[in-house]
Amino acid sequence: MDELKERIVKDGRVLPGNIIKVDGFLNHRVDMTLMEHIADEFAKYFDISRADMVMTAEASGIAIASICAYRWGLPMVFAKKAKSDNIEGGLYQSEIYSYTYKKKVTQILSKEWLTKDNHVIIIDDFMAQGEAIRGLCDIVQQAGAELLGVGIAIEKGFQDGGKKIREKGVNYHALVTIEKADENGFVFA
Amino acid sequence: MDELKERIVKDGRVLPGNIIKVDGFLNHRVDMTLMEHIADEFAKYFDISRADMVMTAEASGIAIASICAYRWGLPMVFAKKAKSDNIEGGLYQSEIYSYTYKKKVTQILSKEWLTKDNHVIIIDDFMAQGEAIRGLCDIVQQAGAELLGVGIAIEKGFQDGGKKIREKGVNYHALVTIEKADENGFVFA
Repeated sequence: MDELKERIVKDGRVLPGNIIKVDGFLNHRVDMTLMEHIADEFAKYFDISRADMVMTAEASGIAIASICAYRWGLPMVFAKKAKSDNIEGGLYQSEIYSYTYKKKVTQILSKEWLTKDNHVIIIDDFMAQGEAIRGLCDIVQQAGAELLGVGIAIEKGFQDGGKKIREKGVNYHALVTIEKADENGFVFA
Repeated sequence: MDELKERIVKDGRVLPGNIIKVDGFLNHRVDMTLMEHIADEFAKYFDISRADMVMTAEASGIAIASICAYRWGLPMVFAKKAKSDNIEGGLYQSEIYSYTYKKKVTQILSKEWLTKDNHVIIIDDFMAQGEAIRGLCDIVQQAGAELLGVGIAIEKGFQDGGKKIREKGVNYHALVTIEKADENGFVFA
């Protein structure tokens, strides 16, 4: 997706430790027009007509998943990071490791909002080690729901997340894959 | 906003401790068509033409704020809950008490994405004690930006948040105010 590549080159930065900073348009300040274009691009790769839900993980996936769901006429469900008092009863749970926060995190999702009858598209902003997506796929599997696809805006191709999900046979698509990011800038796949 | 009241009556529930559960359409599973109608309703109360940003707090404010920002042609910025490695440099910080998580939380927002030249509309899904909104208003003030208004989908009128923000003279509007919620159902203001 050329528009997204150009935006990464223009506004993205690389911090020490191969941290790719795109928080001016993707995951802190969010450019909603770009999100619209991303949603329309994802729609080329997934069978939206069979989907009945967009799923993501809090917090940075919510904006992009919301616009996808809105453009596709679907509800959006997000897995939460920890148990709060507002979620009662039966929960799907998946334990993942957050490299951002350097600790284990339990994703939870109420059993009320996902059942074996659902047809789910998972959307997230970023894929590095793929832990958030692994957890979401695990929750879809726990529910016995159908996973129609997984869409990521930006994949760090030099980490393992994309490889691991491709090996699972999931209909996975990243709009942009960054193969290398350092002081010389970005190299795309 | 009658549509939202009707949805609360139809799909909302009250848990012990006056916890109002609307997570089937507002803050866990999110009904994007309802969010569109909410965005269009908020637009009646705020001067969208002067705004250049929608601000909210992670996580449950992001979906509603995203659709507002999208419908209004604006970017959306969300305050994060804790420092992660992806945010460098200067941060606005505001310490609030989370009644949901029963602990102090520091809201942070990068100084890159909010300056004295911005004109901000704050949007959130829910107002109870008003701590999240107090923190966001504080961040806008730290930046010296203009606060054009604060919009909340559902206010718990029997708690203090709405009263406190009205006393500040902010252009505040809640689409629905719940005066009472118990085993007999909901009473609206």
